Amino acid sequence: MGNSIKLENVYIASTGTVCGPLEYQGPLGSSFDKGFGDYHCGEDSFEKAERKMLRDSLDICLKREKLKQKDIDLYIGGDLLNQITTVNYLARELPKPFVGIYGACSSFCLSMAMSSLLIEGGFVDKVIAMVSSHNATAERQYRYPVEYGVQKKDTTTFTATGAISTLLTNQPTQVRVESITLGKVVDYSQDDPNDMGRAMAPAAYDTITTHFEDLKRSFQDYDLVVTGDLSTYGHKILKEMMQRHKIDVVHYNDCGCMLYDLQNQEVFQGGSGCACSGLVTMGHLYPMLKDKKYKRVLVVATGALLSPMMSAQKDTIPCVAHAISLEVVE
Amino acid sequence: MGNSIKLENVYIASTGTVCGPLEYQGPLGSSFDKGFGDYHCGEDSFEKAERKMLRDSLDICLKREKLKQKDIDLYIGGDLLNQITTVNYLARELPKPFVGIYGACSSFCLSMAMSSLLIEGGFVDKVIAMVSSHNATAERQYRYPVEYGVQKKDTTTFTATGAISTLLTNQPTQVRVESITLGKVVDYSQDDPNDMGRAMAPAAYDTITTHFEDLKRSFQDYDLVVTGDLSTYGHKILKEMMQRHKIDVVHYNDCGCMLYDLQNQEVFQGGSGCACSGLVTMGHLYPMLKDKKYKRVLVVATGALLSPMMSAQKDTIPCVAHAISLEVVE
Repeated sequence: MGNSIKLENVYIASTGTVCGPLEYQGPLGSSFDKGFGDYHCGEDSFEKAERKMLRDSLDICLKREKLKQKDIDLYIGGDLLNQITTVNYLARELPKPFVGIYGACSSFCLSMAMSSLLIEGGFVDKVIAMVSSHNATAERQYRYPVEYGVQKKDTTTFTATGAISTLLTNQPTQVRVESITLGKVVDYSQDDPNDMGRAMAPAAYDTITTHFEDLKRSFQDYDLVVTGDLSTYGHKILKEMMQRHKIDVVHYNDCGCMLYDLQNQEVFQGGSGCACSGLVTMGHLYPMLKDKKYKRVLVVATGALLSPMMSAQKDTIPCVAHAISLEVVE
Repeated sequence: MGNSIKLENVYIASTGTVCGPLEYQGPLGSSFDKGFGDYHCGEDSFEKAERKMLRDSLDICLKREKLKQKDIDLYIGGDLLNQITTVNYLARELPKPFVGIYGACSSFCLSMAMSSLLIEGGFVDKVIAMVSSHNATAERQYRYPVEYGVQKKDTTTFTATGAISTLLTNQPTQVRVESITLGKVVDYSQDDPNDMGRAMAPAAYDTITTHFEDLKRSFQDYDLVVTGDLSTYGHKILKEMMQRHKIDVVHYNDCGCMLYDLQNQEVFQGGSGCACSGLVTMGHLYPMLKDKKYKRVLVVATGALLSPMMSAQKDTIPCVAHAISLEVVE
């Protein structure tokens, strides 16, 4: 069997997108349902702030369809924190089963893909896929607390602050999940936790070319192909890899370059984190699909499966990319 | 829809079980495929030792069926380390897609359940579910490095050292996964990371009673019901909860009490960790099913979704339990 699976019965019914201050001030800010003016979101720790954003995104997503938490069959989610703390601790408030997934920044597409497969398999009718990331919680855990003011390397990306909940169902709507490709874990011997974009480009290359091969497609079959958070460096490397293999790259962008104004916002090489691909896809691309400005887009969320413990042991960084294809229902 | 799903086409084709020194010396030691005499397994860090055990379990599992890594459609796995380091770093060596899941010590049943659903849905033919835990890596991360010699509380459990790979297919074998129940996350306001058994008992109660209700069953419908790692305390609490609700408890045991000789091995209240339920199920119960000594067993892997960061913030501990029912194919 190939790594890609075509789907017939999976639709997007609703979403809720919540973001932090820089995302709200960015070029896509007005697309998001809610933006917080600071990183605390009225809570007394950054971890609780991230959880609040996720709770808010879930509330917005459900309210839009006049649903209650108990109307959902299953919740699937992940985030960047150790023990996927944000989703697991929020799941206490949910009256239905919860499945935790972890794919680092690729968790947005991974949660959407797994949710889609369980609906397509006929096991559940309504699933909510949820992810979040928060600049202050992720930076502290993976690198240094933001408050230290450590000087950043030129290759650094900026973890996006935001949370996204998406309701998937087997009832037809305007936009569907048309196919998915689950990614292989690859490792090109990169060992610098401050240069994730470059480390992840080969994973994106692998998943995109596998997707095209499995489904006999090319960039031309999509109005837009976006990677999750390769940043300007990784984005450039991915293009070079494609060109070296004589693959024509058109309609391609990276969510990390779309979420912020790279000239005027201090985000180094661009955005990263689960919320980066999640916010761009559900806040920006999904409305474009609903308005039929795009017919079909491929979202390839990239993840650096970095363990600070293994980096301390001088191990290199495994990376992965999972893809979902979203299409207008005619 | 209920939280339980009956399956028709999911079979166990092979397994590989690898354990550490105490598990090998324990009452089930001779059931495991391989036992290491120390915690280093010939590697220079405990994290790499855990990865080696997982790699060995995978090799044994594949070899038994004369399969190569590339013959598998999908790998699904989890472990206890931050960023599920063991599975993610091993996945670099795999030529096929990998899905990371996280349910703490419930990851054994969660990976088996998700693998089963993807096979039942017809998306993949062969999936390997893999989990591991290691006493030294988990204790350092969740509590204190073992070398500190911190005095243990009476309620403490002992993280099992081991790794389990299981091949699931849609081709009939002697034993099948007959049904699964995905668990809700519950929280009974327990905040002591040294008393996980008690915290998890309500999650086990919730999943077992939901399983029985959804499928109109009772303890009598199983030759054995095992929980994952409730330990002697949690095991007793679960029984009390059942009795309070007038549920007759028969054929019930806890993997944490079965894996070790609690009288003579220094494991406090019993075993815990993903490897605890994994080793007991695949090393001990699976052969009993193959030999038709049991007809049907219910495995309820329990997980404390504890984040040390949230415990430091005085938050309580969310817990979950996922169940799989294994049955002899007549």
